[in-house]
Amino acid sequence: MDQNFFKAVESSQAGTSFELESFLDHIPFNSSGLVPVIAQQFDSLEVLMLAWMNRDAILQTLRTGDVTYWSRSRQAYWVKGKTSGHEQKLKEMRFDCDGDALLCLVDQKGGACHTFRPSCFFYRYDRDKTTVTVINDAPKGS
Amino acid sequence: MDQNFFKAVESSQAGTSFELESFLDHIPFNSSGLVPVIAQQFDSLEVLMLAWMNRDAILQTLRTGDVTYWSRSRQAYWVKGKTSGHEQKLKEMRFDCDGDALLCLVDQKGGACHTFRPSCFFYRYDRDKTTVTVINDAPKGS
Repeated sequence: MDQNFFKAVESSQAGTSFELESFLDHIPFNSSGLVPVIAQQFDSLEVLMLAWMNRDAILQTLRTGDVTYWSRSRQAYWVKGKTSGHEQKLKEMRFDCDGDALLCLVDQKGGACHTFRPSCFFYRYDRDKTTVTVINDAPKGS
Repeated sequence: MDQNFFKAVESSQAGTSFELESFLDHIPFNSSGLVPVIAQQFDSLEVLMLAWMNRDAILQTLRTGDVTYWSRSRQAYWVKGKTSGHEQKLKEMRFDCDGDALLCLVDQKGGACHTFRPSCFFYRYDRDKTTVTVINDAPKGS
């Protein structure tokens, strides 16, 4: 947990590399040991969901290629799609400028949302009516 | 703060609307009163950054159209681009299935990152070398 690390290296040129484990040593995990992770479909670029990883979930995701979160509600590792069949295969993992957020480019099988919708972000603010509106139906079977 | 609300309405059909203020009453803000917010460029769909909003920042963003975060490091409202000139104009705000994450589709002027890079997510894991690599240079003047 060392924000000075990110300050020190932020102007590094393209191609500068850091060994994974030591890079992870500098990630400012929150008080629960977690960082937020954005999952984005690698080809359509649709943002699918936001969930959380701890250090071991990051390493497991990189080792297996199956995106693995830490479920805050269940307090357990959560291999996405293991029960639903709606797997997320990792294509690419990125870290942000101060190391406190991750972006996973993934290949999502089926709906990413537990409602079976393609994306979890299905509530949209409607400026004209100052309401929040559901933008797509939950597929049958959800 | 009421997860039951989101359970109760998650199967609602497309077009179902909720009044904004009462929808916000159900958002499970964290113990600091914040939710994570993803900013995505509305046309290219590039994910630009992740930051945080409290309820007032959400309302201010919707009212002004200028994306406004809560800076955890400065403990202050942060109208994106107000000092840097790299403004974020709101195109669309979405909420996720359990209300604990937001997605803002924005029109970003200049680099979204404080390093002036287009996106904050410029560190990429390189599977072959098990390193994390900087993927683009910080523009001059950053």
